[in-house]
Amino acid sequence: MAVGKPVPVVDARAKVSGRTQYTVDLHRPGMLYGKILRSPHHHARVVSIDTSAALHIPGVKAVVTGFDLPRVRYGFGWRHRQDMYALSWDKARFKGDEIAAVAAVDESTAAEALQAIVVEYEPLPPVFDFDAALAGDAPLLHDDAPGNIAGTLAFSKGDVDAAFAEPDVVVVEGTYETQRVHQCYMEPMGCLAEWSPDGRLTMYIGSMNTSGIRWMLANSLELPISRVRVVQPNVGGSFGSKVTNAGLYPATAWLAKVTGRPVRTVYTREEEYFAGRPRVNNRIWLKTAARRDGSLLAREVKLLNDVGAYVEMAAAMLEVMSHRSDSLYRIPNIRFDGRMVYTNKSPIGAYRGFGNPQMTFAYEEQLDRIARELDMDPLELRLKNASRQGDVSVHGWELKSCGYPQALEIVRERSGWVQKRAERRPFRGLGVAGTIHEGDDRHSTGFAGSEATLEIFEDGRVSITSGEGEFGQGAHTTFAQIAAEVLTVPLEDVSVRFPDTDISAYALGPWGSRITISGGNAVRYAAEAARNQLLEEAAVMWDVRTENLGIAEGRVFVEGDPERSSTVAEVAKAALYRLNGGVIRTVGKEEPSTSMMNPEIQSNPCSAYSFAAQVAEVTVDPDTGRVTIEGIWTANDCGRVLNPLMADAQVEASVLQGIGFTLSEHMEYRRGHLREAGFLGTGTPNVYDMPPVEVRYTDTHDPYGPYGAKGVAELGQPPIPAALAGAIEDAIGVRFTRLPITPEDIVRALQKKEDQA
Amino acid sequence: MAVGKPVPVVDARAKVSGRTQYTVDLHRPGMLYGKILRSPHHHARVVSIDTSAALHIPGVKAVVTGFDLPRVRYGFGWRHRQDMYALSWDKARFKGDEIAAVAAVDESTAAEALQAIVVEYEPLPPVFDFDAALAGDAPLLHDDAPGNIAGTLAFSKGDVDAAFAEPDVVVVEGTYETQRVHQCYMEPMGCLAEWSPDGRLTMYIGSMNTSGIRWMLANSLELPISRVRVVQPNVGGSFGSKVTNAGLYPATAWLAKVTGRPVRTVYTREEEYFAGRPRVNNRIWLKTAARRDGSLLAREVKLLNDVGAYVEMAAAMLEVMSHRSDSLYRIPNIRFDGRMVYTNKSPIGAYRGFGNPQMTFAYEEQLDRIARELDMDPLELRLKNASRQGDVSVHGWELKSCGYPQALEIVRERSGWVQKRAERRPFRGLGVAGTIHEGDDRHSTGFAGSEATLEIFEDGRVSITSGEGEFGQGAHTTFAQIAAEVLTVPLEDVSVRFPDTDISAYALGPWGSRITISGGNAVRYAAEAARNQLLEEAAVMWDVRTENLGIAEGRVFVEGDPERSSTVAEVAKAALYRLNGGVIRTVGKEEPSTSMMNPEIQSNPCSAYSFAAQVAEVTVDPDTGRVTIEGIWTANDCGRVLNPLMADAQVEASVLQGIGFTLSEHMEYRRGHLREAGFLGTGTPNVYDMPPVEVRYTDTHDPYGPYGAKGVAELGQPPIPAALAGAIEDAIGVRFTRLPITPEDIVRALQKKEDQA
Repeated sequence: MAVGKPVPVVDARAKVSGRTQYTVDLHRPGMLYGKILRSPHHHARVVSIDTSAALHIPGVKAVVTGFDLPRVRYGFGWRHRQDMYALSWDKARFKGDEIAAVAAVDESTAAEALQAIVVEYEPLPPVFDFDAALAGDAPLLHDDAPGNIAGTLAFSKGDVDAAFAEPDVVVVEGTYETQRVHQCYMEPMGCLAEWSPDGRLTMYIGSMNTSGIRWMLANSLELPISRVRVVQPNVGGSFGSKVTNAGLYPATAWLAKVTGRPVRTVYTREEEYFAGRPRVNNRIWLKTAARRDGSLLAREVKLLNDVGAYVEMAAAMLEVMSHRSDSLYRIPNIRFDGRMVYTNKSPIGAYRGFGNPQMTFAYEEQLDRIARELDMDPLELRLKNASRQGDVSVHGWELKSCGYPQALEIVRERSGWVQKRAERRPFRGLGVAGTIHEGDDRHSTGFAGSEATLEIFEDGRVSITSGEGEFGQGAHTTFAQIAAEVLTVPLEDVSVRFPDTDISAYALGPWGSRITISGGNAVRYAAEAARNQLLEEAAVMWDVRTENLGIAEGRVFVEGDPERSSTVAEVAKAALYRLNGGVIRTVGKEEPSTSMMNPEIQSNPCSAYSFAAQVAEVTVDPDTGRVTIEGIWTANDCGRVLNPLMADAQVEASVLQGIGFTLSEHMEYRRGHLREAGFLGTGTPNVYDMPPVEVRYTDTHDPYGPYGAKGVAELGQPPIPAALAGAIEDAIGVRFTRLPITPEDIVRALQKKEDQA
Repeated sequence: MAVGKPVPVVDARAKVSGRTQYTVDLHRPGMLYGKILRSPHHHARVVSIDTSAALHIPGVKAVVTGFDLPRVRYGFGWRHRQDMYALSWDKARFKGDEIAAVAAVDESTAAEALQAIVVEYEPLPPVFDFDAALAGDAPLLHDDAPGNIAGTLAFSKGDVDAAFAEPDVVVVEGTYETQRVHQCYMEPMGCLAEWSPDGRLTMYIGSMNTSGIRWMLANSLELPISRVRVVQPNVGGSFGSKVTNAGLYPATAWLAKVTGRPVRTVYTREEEYFAGRPRVNNRIWLKTAARRDGSLLAREVKLLNDVGAYVEMAAAMLEVMSHRSDSLYRIPNIRFDGRMVYTNKSPIGAYRGFGNPQMTFAYEEQLDRIARELDMDPLELRLKNASRQGDVSVHGWELKSCGYPQALEIVRERSGWVQKRAERRPFRGLGVAGTIHEGDDRHSTGFAGSEATLEIFEDGRVSITSGEGEFGQGAHTTFAQIAAEVLTVPLEDVSVRFPDTDISAYALGPWGSRITISGGNAVRYAAEAARNQLLEEAAVMWDVRTENLGIAEGRVFVEGDPERSSTVAEVAKAALYRLNGGVIRTVGKEEPSTSMMNPEIQSNPCSAYSFAAQVAEVTVDPDTGRVTIEGIWTANDCGRVLNPLMADAQVEASVLQGIGFTLSEHMEYRRGHLREAGFLGTGTPNVYDMPPVEVRYTDTHDPYGPYGAKGVAELGQPPIPAALAGAIEDAIGVRFTRLPITPEDIVRALQKKEDQA
């Protein structure tokens, strides 16, 4: 049994021994080094670019600008606004905007070339925050986006106004603000571009979205899709971020085209902060109503998302955030109004939870307040309202499995919730929060399937080809476990290939917690087809019926006849060399019967929905404002746990990311300038900041996912901000509605409280 | 209509403009250069190898010997004798045998290292020809091969002795000898080896047998098959030769393993001659009987094949030669006795025709003699005996299509055979010969299928993945034509990938004239499945039944409704993004209902059999012995001609190879030493030696091959030696039974004739 076992990830040894090759480790003979010239202005018209001096530097092989590349505006997917050029040629819209790219024989020469490019800018007035951007006379980032509104979304379900007007309801209201944070993956963004003699482009990109990036790249370079090949090497982390077509990719492709040589461009850590795709910062106005018995009645949300200079993933983000987390609790009336606001900052991207940590931070605070007003235990209030298996939510989400009530009960019991709340101690507090996360959502392009190819070699080893990528999260291990389980072969006999658009089928890639469900099912179907082929071959070998055959421990055998038994290798070899036989090579296709995500109508976009509940316990030092996390208890409904070691790691690591987001991390802008651009000074937590975290699971079995599994990757982070804010409030009586909650904030709040007392 | 059109090969432009990259063009950062140390002795015991001096040369990174590599004996396929080590460690068995391999930072340092390796040999007496090798006291090359017999094959069908004893039959008898020739491909053998951090070996080999070489390599390196990946880059010609696991591949893999760096080894042209795999030289004793009416009655063959030092492909060759060309004519009684003889020369390999030119040279001479004895027109005699469609031959071959009689008629008419024979001119003569060649034979491993994957991108372009390789013969063009035909898209919108054992399905590769039939059918099935998917998608788009849909000129349309029509690209895109849709990606599997080749029993190993007839006209200069070819008329039954341009080129080029083989080419050994080792001096013909050649086709339509096609690649060469020898005999009255027929031979023969007169 490979499934359910706590096996280490299959690439652990290569990684910890430093043998894993990432994009930055790729070299090619004659390879050049690319670098990007970035705007020093927040907002400026590009008057002219003089590259002649740079081109005269020995070792500089090419300088390209937006005037050289196809002047195509593109965006993330064709359903969304197309507002971005690979290299900006009309205006720079943020400090860091891509203006030109150079290729040189080494990195220092490339850096020197950047200095020698003379760009004449005509500075324009910038806007950095919601209020400035939305002011009537605000300068516009894009001429075709009046009011700096990049897009809006509004809908309503039920009768929200009637609900709020009902007599005898508790209504709470508030505004919440969250900050930008970087995903802090270890490997910076990078790519290597090379063109084949027949004019095809191959890009090695440390991405988690090979098929999508191929589409965007082809668009931005005006190439037919089939002329672009995207290969995914090992990726040193992404957490959702590395899915967009950053200007560096088309620019590097163009440098390679112009020079006729391979070109590799890799971001510095500083560039990651200036020009990466950090988590969106937003302002959430929220209003919630509940009946006196605690049952939730209505919610209204007004959301502003600061998308920076270009829309990128922000439109998808707005859509998804619009109904976070309406389906976690039973609630009949909702209304949403959301706007994307352009500011002169870098564009934003995805980060584990995709708007969930921010929205949960707001929602769950209002539950705490309602509980207080009704004098209910806040965990009880959640339990009372929690969605249950079989529910169809206000949006039409069909919860075919739901372990949320059980999760709440687990963390109540494991944390000692009731007892600790009874024995209150000064400056010590408890908070609770929950989350629902989509798994395998039909979104973006509309495609939501997955396809895997499985091959059994004559040596009995198994190879899986899937376009669903590994970026450190363990997809290859999960796929190998599933195939090993079905074929009863040792896990180490199964290998999984990295996505390569020339080899692997079109795939969405690992976002939306979809890989185990969707990719895993495809692998399972392929493995089951291969197992059937093994049995059919053995039936021919021994002239028996397949019904009389079994497979176990890597051997096919005739039931009740121990003499007739062969290894998987022997059967695979026999199949290959048999008259009218053939190699065992099967395809598994998965395609869920979900509907396109559309919050304006009733739809059921996911194959499965995952849930989590968390309790946090903190102690606050009133003198220093320092928050000590005494413990975090998590209970996760990710269906059947395929690999406890990996699932634990997923939850633990994202809990730490949530802690950073809540208490310290901040890409802080001062008059538009980033205060810090690196791990130091932006509050990135490290291993010493890890509190005791308990990871438990509900005993849910999902009917759709492989072996009952659902997604686990995005369950750890979302509840943390609300749970910690609730615990801090429980400890010191102050609720913070803006992230991060720093020691300074706490000391200042305590001071203010004292002053008011 | 893409099929049937004379389109240039798809890679023509890249090739003629020098942009095509072959193995020798591959570079890797840190790559080392490999070289092989070869035995200077024909036969010698290896007493000791001292590599220390070589290892001390700066820049030399590794020296490996047969003592370092796994000491595994291997051969070509597991059905045949395993008598070869990657590097010889016990004995050197020919001048050129692989003894050690070095890797150094550049080629000159590697060459220097070879000089510094000290090998102590104990010379042994060698044998170079049949008589010496078969002598009772001959020294043995292999202790386990007494009499230097590497293998034998004998069988009989009908009653040969009774047939020869019949009254009133014409019986002719003779002995024929052929020489070794090199295939003279432009790109020498070479490979690049690299190991991945997880211990997998990737080999880039300019081969035409990726799956097979993977198997042999894995065996010789004691690696599981799944740990070896073989990638085929562009190949600069092979003509059958580049299918075996030459020691250079495992040796280079080992150098890469030991050094931890990529290593590339490429043969020099001289090494090609010393250590390549040239055409087998043989001695054929043949006896044929015919009735007075000309009908063939019986044949007996005694064949000696000089296999050199190791069996390699010779066992397969003996098997196939054993029944060449018993199925070309109706003949009821046959007997065969064949032996493989070891000599201290390099091993032999495949060359276009695979024994057919040699055997045809012998067989067809006897037909000429019988015709003369019966005073029949030799072409008439052939026509009388020619196999016909529907025949089942003496071996059980089922000739479901057969254009041989028509081919004979075409060349008779086109050459002016009757008229020219009537108007005899001095020193001018005509010869005729025919051939049958197998297409897609089930042989070697027993596997005879093919699998292709076809993908339609959102831009409407089509990509085909097949393990059946392109090595210059035009497979990619044929596959693209077939897919373009089925999908009605432009040819230039279809691309075909090179074989890569990580990507493409297990495949035999392009030998036995099987690619168009087997690989082409697989592509056709994949394309038909894709076309059906396009129609199904369009049926969903327009809510109509697929029966009402058509596809033409790259558009899917509703019959009779011109408004409803979409491009293939639009339909493919709609499929991908439709709810429950998906990428159009299909697999075609071809598996003929043939039986394993086994000349000892009745079997039908081929999907289809191809035929050709040729007439040659020559003038002989009696003073210089120079033969001027006045014309060659060919008529080829390769079924439906998919691309006349390519088919013509196949025939024309192989005719020239046949001319070289007949009149000039010779790897001549003197006391075991090669007299020459290069194009110069071995009689390689070039473009100026090309006579007028007419290429015609029969109007055969094969029921199995795609669009009625059969193999064409091996039809040009086999009849040439017999046709030219017959024409020379017709011109000067002397029949040569040993190849090549040089001017010296002719002058000497005319002198002798004169002396006898």
